[in-house]
Amino acid sequence: MHRTYTTQIDAARKGIFTPQMEQVLAEETISRQDLMERVARGHIAIPANKNHLNLMAAGVGQGLRTKINVNLGVSRDVCSFDAEMNKAKLALQYKADAVMDLSVSGDTEAFRKRLVAEVPVMIGTVPVYDTLTRTGKPTEEITLDDWFETVEIHADNGIDFITIHAGLNRKCAHSIQVNPRLCGIVSRGGAILFEWMAKTGNENPFYEHFDRLLDICEARDVCISLGDGLRPGAIKDASDAPQIEELITLGELTRQAWQKNVQVIIEGPGHVPLHEVEMNVRLQKKLCHNAPFYVLGPLVTDIAPGYDHITSAIGGALAAMHGADFLCYVTPAEHLRLPTAEDVKEGIMASRIAAHAGDLAKGLTGAMDPDHRMSRARQSLDWESQFECAIDPEKARAFRQSSQPSDQDVCTMCGDFCAVKRVRDLGKDRESQSAGFSG
Amino acid sequence: MHRTYTTQIDAARKGIFTPQMEQVLAEETISRQDLMERVARGHIAIPANKNHLNLMAAGVGQGLRTKINVNLGVSRDVCSFDAEMNKAKLALQYKADAVMDLSVSGDTEAFRKRLVAEVPVMIGTVPVYDTLTRTGKPTEEITLDDWFETVEIHADNGIDFITIHAGLNRKCAHSIQVNPRLCGIVSRGGAILFEWMAKTGNENPFYEHFDRLLDICEARDVCISLGDGLRPGAIKDASDAPQIEELITLGELTRQAWQKNVQVIIEGPGHVPLHEVEMNVRLQKKLCHNAPFYVLGPLVTDIAPGYDHITSAIGGALAAMHGADFLCYVTPAEHLRLPTAEDVKEGIMASRIAAHAGDLAKGLTGAMDPDHRMSRARQSLDWESQFECAIDPEKARAFRQSSQPSDQDVCTMCGDFCAVKRVRDLGKDRESQSAGFSG
Repeated sequence: MHRTYTTQIDAARKGIFTPQMEQVLAEETISRQDLMERVARGHIAIPANKNHLNLMAAGVGQGLRTKINVNLGVSRDVCSFDAEMNKAKLALQYKADAVMDLSVSGDTEAFRKRLVAEVPVMIGTVPVYDTLTRTGKPTEEITLDDWFETVEIHADNGIDFITIHAGLNRKCAHSIQVNPRLCGIVSRGGAILFEWMAKTGNENPFYEHFDRLLDICEARDVCISLGDGLRPGAIKDASDAPQIEELITLGELTRQAWQKNVQVIIEGPGHVPLHEVEMNVRLQKKLCHNAPFYVLGPLVTDIAPGYDHITSAIGGALAAMHGADFLCYVTPAEHLRLPTAEDVKEGIMASRIAAHAGDLAKGLTGAMDPDHRMSRARQSLDWESQFECAIDPEKARAFRQSSQPSDQDVCTMCGDFCAVKRVRDLGKDRESQSAGFSG
Repeated sequence: MHRTYTTQIDAARKGIFTPQMEQVLAEETISRQDLMERVARGHIAIPANKNHLNLMAAGVGQGLRTKINVNLGVSRDVCSFDAEMNKAKLALQYKADAVMDLSVSGDTEAFRKRLVAEVPVMIGTVPVYDTLTRTGKPTEEITLDDWFETVEIHADNGIDFITIHAGLNRKCAHSIQVNPRLCGIVSRGGAILFEWMAKTGNENPFYEHFDRLLDICEARDVCISLGDGLRPGAIKDASDAPQIEELITLGELTRQAWQKNVQVIIEGPGHVPLHEVEMNVRLQKKLCHNAPFYVLGPLVTDIAPGYDHITSAIGGALAAMHGADFLCYVTPAEHLRLPTAEDVKEGIMASRIAAHAGDLAKGLTGAMDPDHRMSRARQSLDWESQFECAIDPEKARAFRQSSQPSDQDVCTMCGDFCAVKRVRDLGKDRESQSAGFSG
């Protein structure tokens, strides 16, 4: 079927309601008109590469359910593509909305093709990493064409969104040198581009030749996730001049992308203390013209390796409440090791909790329904329904089964002191319970 | 040594700086003068029963580090006092600030005495539960003296703070009947008193005879933790009329207690959506005249049994940021079973993260120091220091040891793509790295 539009944003501007928009509409509570208007204005992105044939498209942005992403991918030291494919399956099983393949070793293209063929949620990558892996060159020998060829390969492979650290230009690189940081650059893609710029003396290739990037992305409808190469990697570095300078640049690039009908998502911090989370979200929304905001955490303290799924659930929930649209999960393995399958599950659950808590706070239509179902099940001491309503039915069931109460109505925490049962039984005992307190 | 004052608040009002205030001062960054003034005004409580001889006193309130409490205690179905004593030891090992014994079965007094003898942090109980356990009577046969005798026993045993649901009077009981709820009463102590009031037709004994309670508490310097018997047990019930009506009553009782030199802490919700957390804290501080606020969560969604340490870490962190002073931990077992030792550890860590994130956001003096140490250790790829700075060194170490990188500088997540190492090596390569971006 010949498309009369290039990208989702182009379609929306032409008044065309695409099959991908239909898919989004079916899963959300937004109106048809609002969806199309917001896609046209860039406030909602629908990452949907034309070559990702089995994709069930989802939307990211204002008025939609907060989405979560699962990072996976091999490293030099832990390099089993089968293990990573298993993580992708866990992501689907536990209802993640997106998968990013951050592989930096081995035959990345074969794995990427496998992912695109088997994973029906949106898939993201970071072509900068893969340029090093694919070419095997020392960073300083990478050519302009090398960078862009990798982007083209990923686009052709069917990747729905790509992280591009185009905002880390020489001006921003200068900024981290005049505004010293505790932890410098902690973004892998940012560090690679910084190294390339430092060693070659060139400008950031994606900043200098942003139009070349836009042409590639428009042709396959690849959404650009504008990466924050200068995101803070320490509480002390949060919201500093380099971070905000890069954010300003991302806002300028966002407008350029929208002019070429290319969809954009903005990536955000990072390590951020709790009282700066709201400000970060509001500033991103302002400086980037309400483009969807994708936060990597934020982690609200530096001191909890082994528990960073929790530090990021705290920050992510608050970010979502204030308008962040997309949360990148963080696993308990963050800062320590490539995550195991178990880490992946813990990360997904923490991130889903944060997203859902944010949706309740956003007042998203229908978001409270599962909470009401759960609370009704609790009030009626209906354990089977409680498991069904739970975000992780198998874990809830296993916890209860591990510790059996003598009275099946209650649990072993309270036993005969169960408040719900006590008040319920009181109601049964009395003709009219309320009469007791009416005087 | 004869004391010339009854309670900490009495001492502060008389200008006496007690040994307990010295202990608080040694662990906090508040000034001597501020501490004494705030104790005198009730804005800081130092729960310190005269009979808790090995206590290292800690303070709860404005300008102090946010504290965390560990609940433990046997139930009918899981009734090993040794297992509960082991939880108390875990609480100390993992740096909890308080322990509450919620035992509702067996020889509770023997266990309470053992706890007081062996646990040097403040200890709390809920005498209402124990009145049923101790007397073995059906609720409606409990006498006024039964209720107060239990309080006296706990006070004599050396308990530092007792939860008393004195605010759930007949007026508030009427309120939940004219303002229907999804989950009614979920507080165990609240449900027991409600049942007693309904069946006997009497007023709440602790509300009606609050002065009798105050006399007992003043004599041993027992801090009253005014319980929220009507705390919401469902997102839908949060911040409703009965909850706020009870909070108003707690504010009135707070003034009465302070007049009798009795220290007070206010207990708060419960299940609260993220966007109502700030309002709940501010309202408590207002209606209860800046008395210290002790939150039981809050859980920001109902749907995550098995992960309620995370739902409550989100709510607790936000509550602490806005001024909550004391967080009651919640374990992954909440709503499902009596927690295991492993659940207790997970609950403590999640709660400590929330408290610390709150302290960073409160701008508490010195709170950021551990974060800065950790980030400096990360920046210098000093793994041993990272473990030492970690909130749970053993877990961080175990994660890393389980997945060994080929280059000991980095971890298996990024390997040779480690951003920190890449930028550091770049600095080593170049005479002056900064020159590259100065133009």
